[in-house]
Amino acid sequence: MSVSEQLGEREIIETLWKQMEKMARMPVPFGDDVSAFSVDSERLAVLKTDMLVGKTDVPPNMSLWQAARKAVVMNVSDFAAKGVKPSVMLISLGLPRGFTKAKIEEIGKGLNAGAREYGAYIIGGDTGEASDLVISVSLFGLAPKKSLMLRSGAKEGDFVAVTGAFGRTAAGLKLLLGTLGAETDDRDTLVESVLMPHARLKEGLALGRTQVVTAAIDSSDGLAWSLHEIARSSKVGFLIDKLPAAEEAVKVAAANRLDPSELVLYGGEEYELVVTVKPKLWNKAADAVKQVGGKLSLIGKVTRGRQVFLKVDGEKRAVEPRGWEHFKSCTC
Amino acid sequence: MSVSEQLGEREIIETLWKQMEKMARMPVPFGDDVSAFSVDSERLAVLKTDMLVGKTDVPPNMSLWQAARKAVVMNVSDFAAKGVKPSVMLISLGLPRGFTKAKIEEIGKGLNAGAREYGAYIIGGDTGEASDLVISVSLFGLAPKKSLMLRSGAKEGDFVAVTGAFGRTAAGLKLLLGTLGAETDDRDTLVESVLMPHARLKEGLALGRTQVVTAAIDSSDGLAWSLHEIARSSKVGFLIDKLPAAEEAVKVAAANRLDPSELVLYGGEEYELVVTVKPKLWNKAADAVKQVGGKLSLIGKVTRGRQVFLKVDGEKRAVEPRGWEHFKSCTC
Repeated sequence: MSVSEQLGEREIIETLWKQMEKMARMPVPFGDDVSAFSVDSERLAVLKTDMLVGKTDVPPNMSLWQAARKAVVMNVSDFAAKGVKPSVMLISLGLPRGFTKAKIEEIGKGLNAGAREYGAYIIGGDTGEASDLVISVSLFGLAPKKSLMLRSGAKEGDFVAVTGAFGRTAAGLKLLLGTLGAETDDRDTLVESVLMPHARLKEGLALGRTQVVTAAIDSSDGLAWSLHEIARSSKVGFLIDKLPAAEEAVKVAAANRLDPSELVLYGGEEYELVVTVKPKLWNKAADAVKQVGGKLSLIGKVTRGRQVFLKVDGEKRAVEPRGWEHFKSCTC
Repeated sequence: MSVSEQLGEREIIETLWKQMEKMARMPVPFGDDVSAFSVDSERLAVLKTDMLVGKTDVPPNMSLWQAARKAVVMNVSDFAAKGVKPSVMLISLGLPRGFTKAKIEEIGKGLNAGAREYGAYIIGGDTGEASDLVISVSLFGLAPKKSLMLRSGAKEGDFVAVTGAFGRTAAGLKLLLGTLGAETDDRDTLVESVLMPHARLKEGLALGRTQVVTAAIDSSDGLAWSLHEIARSSKVGFLIDKLPAAEEAVKVAAANRLDPSELVLYGGEEYELVVTVKPKLWNKAADAVKQVGGKLSLIGKVTRGRQVFLKVDGEKRAVEPRGWEHFKSCTC
């Protein structure tokens, strides 16, 4: 493998971005989870596009219906993290030769299910031939400028919190790939977490309305990666003192002699929100999430240094900036 | 090849659309060149996504810079046909393994060139690994509701007109594929028409402002196909009595014993606009295009029957509903 083959997703995006003439006064900086264009003094048109590729994004045993739905969910999750409601979406579909009508119907049903689950509609798109199944989703929504949550506003002393527990998808993927030895009672739950992800849209919209969130991101590339991304964009660091480990992940780690924090920190395709909140207004954020049926869990604090640490039993360990970056982490 | 392998683009899109729960009051009907969402009483957010796939959309000798630029141009052309100015775009990029940094830079430069040529900016996107090069472009613009040109408003007696001459790209592609025997003096012009397409954005915006166009489409799938699409959406027919043949296409057809009308009608990747205009207001449309440096050429009339005919030397021949539909016409 040559050096060029090891270009990561970040490096590719930055290389592309360097070639672009920049629009003045971009309402959302390049590299955040969504892009935006001002439609009037109070509102933004918010845009997002993300591509699911069969070869790298569809694990074994995931049906076409599930893959299509997932393509929508992973885009909605980015809107959720910014506090933006998706209104409509367009689908650009690349299909391998020989796809039957039944398969295309299954994809259509999965796309529609994903969209309707979050109150959005699919209103257009395009199709063409490709070697892999490629599902490119383009999301659009209108959002009040003041409710948008970016990656870049975290301040030293802010609380950092998450909308759920981590580690299930990392374990679930190992089960699907057959790389986990011991059996587990939680097999269905773990596998389901991979095949049927859910975006935290209600939570994200509620948090956006509070205007007490200083930075936000979804955890699709893993908890560690998300923390490092906020750290990078906000020029801060983190001290995590309560690892948000899913019970099933802890159990499966114990049975397989795995480090549970590995599953919790360095998994991915886990669509929770990671947010920083002004400490004095913590209750407002936590209550807003509670009111929509969710739970915001405090996991640590924003620090001054640019590093991310995990405090376990009084000992500080560095959390590495690695995660679910496809080009580099894919084992195929 | 099984029957399922021969599903055309239209059938795939209709199959997908049947699975979708429909949004009420869509400002632009499904199946038109763009999609839209109402942002206030006067304006629409206009959206478009279209995917360029290396295997099927990039002819031999087209550079990566040209392919990337073309991915943008083909999307802009659809905005042009609707009278909508593109403001910003997002790129979703699928890259085969082993793409060098230099190649990625070339793609970035091509994308930027395409966007800036039409006054738009690229403001975001995403990248991932794919077996083919896949460039999915998502376009966004705001448009006054009253200036939007749809496919569906042509009425019997309307004039039908085009913004340029046809046949160059069909001949140019044959040259690139090496399937044209005789040499031609116009090789550079013909090849250039394939490698460096231009969208008729100025013309489209000027026509949209006149509000005298009853239906419009771009000719990316060929002139015959475009006429049949307007016919289908507007429930009308056409009688074409002046074939808009490019001089170079006529010459190359003669030298190679080809039917020039075949090149003119059934080519594709030729980004002219095909519009129908209220006869009494023809001058207004023609003048508007002239004022932006273009030329609107009358080629025939809208008729009552649902068929498309070409009148040559007093004889009426049916124009077939075939064109540049990738899944079916690709010879690879």
